[in-house]
Order: sequence, then C-alpha cells, then structure tokens
Amino acid sequence: MVYLDYAATTPLDSEVLNTYTTLLKSLFGNPDSIHTVGVEASRLLEQARGHIIDSLHLIKKDIIFTSGASESNNLALKGVVLGQNKKHIITTNIEHASIIHTCQQLEKYFGCKVTYLPVNEQGVVTVEQVERAICEDTAVVSIMAVNNEVGSINPIHEIGKMLHERHRGILFHCDLVQAVGKIPLSLEYVDMGTISAHKIHGLKGSGILFKPASLYLEPVICGGEQERGMRGGTINAPAQIVLAKTLRKALTAQPKAYKHVSELNQYLRNTLSQVEGVKVHSPVNGSPFIFNFASPVPSEIMMNSLQSAGFMVSAKSTCSSQEQSASHVLVALGISLEEADHTIRVSMHEEVSHKDIESFVKQVITTIEKFVK
Amino acid sequence: MVYLDYAATTPLDSEVLNTYTTLLKSLFGNPDSIHTVGVEASRLLEQARGHIIDSLHLIKKDIIFTSGASESNNLALKGVVLGQNKKHIITTNIEHASIIHTCQQLEKYFGCKVTYLPVNEQGVVTVEQVERAICEDTAVVSIMAVNNEVGSINPIHEIGKMLHERHRGILFHCDLVQAVGKIPLSLEYVDMGTISAHKIHGLKGSGILFKPASLYLEPVICGGEQERGMRGGTINAPAQIVLAKTLRKALTAQPKAYKHVSELNQYLRNTLSQVEGVKVHSPVNGSPFIFNFASPVPSEIMMNSLQSAGFMVSAKSTCSSQEQSASHVLVALGISLEEADHTIRVSMHEEVSHKDIESFVKQVITTIEKFVK
Repeated sequence: MVYLDYAATTPLDSEVLNTYTTLLKSLFGNPDSIHTVGVEASRLLEQARGHIIDSLHLIKKDIIFTSGASESNNLALKGVVLGQNKKHIITTNIEHASIIHTCQQLEKYFGCKVTYLPVNEQGVVTVEQVERAICEDTAVVSIMAVNNEVGSINPIHEIGKMLHERHRGILFHCDLVQAVGKIPLSLEYVDMGTISAHKIHGLKGSGILFKPASLYLEPVICGGEQERGMRGGTINAPAQIVLAKTLRKALTAQPKAYKHVSELNQYLRNTLSQVEGVKVHSPVNGSPFIFNFASPVPSEIMMNSLQSAGFMVSAKSTCSSQEQSASHVLVALGISLEEADHTIRVSMHEEVSHKDIESFVKQVITTIEKFVK
Repeated sequence: MVYLDYAATTPLDSEVLNTYTTLLKSLFGNPDSIHTVGVEASRLLEQARGHIIDSLHLIKKDIIFTSGASESNNLALKGVVLGQNKKHIITTNIEHASIIHTCQQLEKYFGCKVTYLPVNEQGVVTVEQVERAICEDTAVVSIMAVNNEVGSINPIHEIGKMLHERHRGILFHCDLVQAVGKIPLSLEYVDMGTISAHKIHGLKGSGILFKPASLYLEPVICGGEQERGMRGGTINAPAQIVLAKTLRKALTAQPKAYKHVSELNQYLRNTLSQVEGVKVHSPVNGSPFIFNFASPVPSEIMMNSLQSAGFMVSAKSTCSSQEQSASHVLVALGISLEEADHTIRVSMHEEVSHKDIESFVKQVITTIEKFVK
C-alpha cells in the first residue's frame, strides 16, 4: 500500500507512540489536582507548553491546548469577536471548513460581518486585498498559511507585517495546519496560530492555538479554570505532553522533508502535465506536499482504480468528503464544477519514495488511457 | 499510595490501554477518508457507536463523539438554544462548571434566560421545583444525575417522566459523568446525556453526548461534515472506538463496585461522624462513590497531612481547584464559607480496599487530634 493522503492524516511516529504509552501507564493524574499525582502531570504539561513556545520561537505568546485544529480555529474567531465589540472578520474563500463554517455561524447568530476575500488563480490573496477590506469594525483577520486542497501559500509574513505596522489592534490569525513542519515559515507577525498534531505524525485529538499572552479569549468550551479559564475540560495531559515532541521532530525534519517532497512534486508535475487531458491545479510556487490535478477520468473512478493498485489518495478535503457539492476551494480558483469532479489530491511526506511516485504516475496514466479509449 | 480522588480522574484500565495502543499502531486512517485506510477506521467507529447505544439501552438516539464531558455539556445547551427560538434554560445551582459557565455565557451574549434552581440540604432538586420553573420559552432542562462534590442524586427519572408526560417539546439533558458505571441508572426519559471516558478508567479527551436521533444541534466546534455536521474536527477514532469497551466494562462492573464502595462509604460515615468537630456533607442516600466532610482542620493542612501519609484526596471539584473562592456546591447546600474551607472530598472506586479506608480514617483522626491540641 502506498499512502498518499498525508494532508488528511498521518501515521503515528513510533517514538511519539512509545512516550505516549509510557505516559498513559504512569501519568493518569488530573493536572488540576493539587496532590502529587496531579502535580506531576501539571509539571510535565507546563514543561511541554514551554517547549512548544520555544520550538516555534514565539515571543510573548501563550498556548491553549485544544482537541485539534478545528477547535483551535473556532476558538481563535469566536474567542475574539465574542469578547469585544468589534464584529468584522476578514478571511478568504478557500479556508478550511472550520473557519468558513465558524464565520457563517457568527454571521447567522452573532451579528458579525465577514469579508471572504477571493483568491487569484494561484489560490492566494494579496496584502493589498486584505488592507482594502479593513474597516473600523475589523476585529480579526484569519488567513491560512497553506491551502489544504491545492497547496497554495499565502503571504502571511507580509500580511502580518502590514497589519502590525499600520493596523495595530487587529488580530492576525493563521491556520498553520498544512504549513508547520512542512514549509519554511516565519511566525513573527502572526498573533494567533492553529496547529494540529495528527497532521505531523502525532496524535488525533491534540492541537494548540497560540495567542498573545495578554489576550483573553471567550471560551468555546466553557468549564473550569483550565487553560486560564479559556478552555474547559480536563486536559488530555499525556496527549498534549507528547505534542511537544511531535512538533520538535516535525520541525527538525522539515528541511529534509521539504527537499525530498519537492523532488517528488516536480516529478509529478513534469510527467502528469504532459498527459493529454490532465490539468494541474496546484500552483508552481505552492507547498510541494500537496499536488492537485484533474484528469479526463471522474474522481471516483480514478480513486477506485488507484486504490485497487494500492494507492490511497483523496478527491478533496477529507473534512468535506461527505458533502455532495464540489470543493469550495476549486470553485474559488475558477475551476468548473465538471472539472472539480475529475480532481485528485495527492499529499505526500518524507517517507514516500521516488519509486512509489513513479508507480503512481504509471497507474494514473494507465487509468486515463483505459478510460478515454 | 492510596488514590482517593476517582471523581477527578481514574487510572486507565489495562485492557482498554492494550486495545488502544493496538489501534494507534494499526488504524491511523481518517474515518472520513473514502479509501481503504479511512473506511476501516470508519467501520470500527460506527461499530463502537452502535455498541455504546446498545449498552446504554438508548432508543431512537444518536451519539456525538466529543473531546470530553465539558464539550458535551456545552454542546447540549448551546446546540439546542442557538438552533431554535426558545431561549429559557432550567438548571440547578450545583451543576458542574461546564454547565454553569455555559449558562452564564448564554445569558451574557445570546439573550438567554436561565433559572438556577436551588437545591435542598440534601443537595437535590424536586420534580415540583422543575415544573414550577417551566415557562413558554423553556427550551431545555439540564440537571446532573450525581453531584461531583457531595454525591447527591437528583431524581432524573421522575423529572424526565414529568417532562415527557406533561411538557413535550422541552428537552431534558443530564450530566451523567459521576453516575454512569457507578449508580443504578434509568435513562428512559433522558433526551440528552453527557458521559466522560476518563472518569470510568478510560482515556482523557474522549466523551459522548447522546441526543434524539432526529435532533439537530448547532455545533460548538464548527467544521466539516463529521458527526453529521454537528461536531467538526477529525474524529479521534482510536480513542472513541475504545470508549465502547470502557463503557461496557464500567457498566458490567457497576453492581459489584456499587456494593463494595457502599461498604467503604458506610465505614467512613460511621467512624468519622463520631469524631468531634467532623460534619458529613454527603447525604445518606447519595452516591457511595463520593464522601464529603468537614473537620476542624483547614482543607490545605488536612490534604498535606494526608498526602504525607500517602493519601490523595481533594478539597473540591478539580475543575475549580485553581479558583480561590469557596465551592459553589457547598455554598448552595447552605454550608458556611468557613466550613467550606475545612472540607475534604474522598472519592472511591472498586479497587480501594477496606484496609485503605481504615488507614485513611486513622490518619484523618490523628491529624485532627494533633491540630486541635
């Protein structure tokens, strides 16, 4: 089997698993208990929090542990706009469902106004677009670093710099899920960032939102005094403690993984773009970890053919796989519904070999040839 | 070490741990992926969902997997009141922080009205109190089955029956965290129920909300189409799959655990109530798993003395352990702030022995004697 759906989820790193199972056996305490068992859990958790802050080079930031990126994205937007009077949000029309649907909920029930910036054909927004959309009521700008379907990379450093220099008071949030541990990344001007463990060989059910240390966020999950009152519920200490290790390993492996995957991506682009009827959707300067293309073969038939040959890919974002409608990302890129329905997303990581990708390309070509005959 | 803080969290069952680690190694797929790896995760997850519904004897109900009880409690209330026009909630003044603070948020930002019913000295509300509080605008009644600090048991069967017979249309939610796997329980008239895995020897970060199959809940975590669009985020499939086993084991062990813990509780009551200056807060007919008492020794000094002798207890709910104020539950029971500050909660489970409890009582008495001398 060749797994090529790393943007959906990744296998668990064996070192992370070992540390985690050791913790599960030894560290059952509730970190908020004030007896020895709890205090030890709390000590390790706070240590992990510090390591995460250090490894991301965050300055004057705090970490909130969450159940994953969707919760982090909800918390970033709801936490900001419920806690203050400003009700305008700027985002893009290619964000993950957890941003888009949060925005829609805030519009429907909480009187928010949301500007969904259109992306260009490369799947990116510009600094100028963001600045033009700003109004007096703007509370937060939320823009993903790397799009999860086509891999386009937004200029988050430049957008953040513009906001910091000319629009202090507006918070800048980035969904970093497909960026951290994958592409080179500057978080200097990012106020709030969403990271998921299971996209970088970590555990499902584990994620963070980082945020300015002084910023109060109205909780999405109201509860006890955990996470300074901003996220209720007993912290999943063993899982969140190993997130520090997961993140450190991903960041250390990033340059090598990037180089390797860039070669695979180049091979995919070179070979498949020459096949008649194939159109590559991923921009040339996007994240090499994601390669999105359309072929004359409908997605479902292509996926079945690939699966029977042992290749696991997806047609669109896994979070939206149960939806019947076309991908909102492809539609935003100006791709027709017909073509969207013929789309395949290949997403890779370090452990995918050149040989795997060569066999994959052969199978794609064979499938197309059979179909168009 | 004798752990007597089972109401805060419990050690992980070794069978649950084994199954879980097997799944972590073998089943990394995203249950929403439509290739083989994802489909296998989805199959096992749906099987677990069915097992949970069966083991709780739920009829016409659905399960939503959550990150734990606090999230479930938030979803039950927010999910109902955001999705409809009725904005009145009835609850009690001894609920868990995740209910109380959710209600306060709904009052502050969403125009909800909340009736916090006062409990009597036994820590319970009556059917009549609930019925009197109902108005045309009442959307949901949320009452915990067993209080987490003193163990009082609310008449949820009777309250649910009254609502079903005379007030159809009002949803009845119960926080079952300290009840499931502990006391005998009828869920016949409970529309929505919150259950946590880590309180019954399961994993942290894992819980459910059950709800009527036909009921749509506005998501607390907006995102993809997971959980029929009512809870975004990649499902933590390995953890939620083993929740079925955790729950089955807890329900099977319940009668024996109940009998055993009742004897321990009786011993605690008989011995400690005879000590001068000790006042037992837990009602006689409450859950035997929780024993709450005050002594002449301030909580902190008592906890330190007990800890130095190897006994882990708590002073109040762990979720509120970081708060400086007195327990809202003890205040609701009419207990003075002074006495609340001298309170200890002992919470037990099947693995606590008679000998453990005998030694514990001795240490409590020794501490009191030393202190009052």
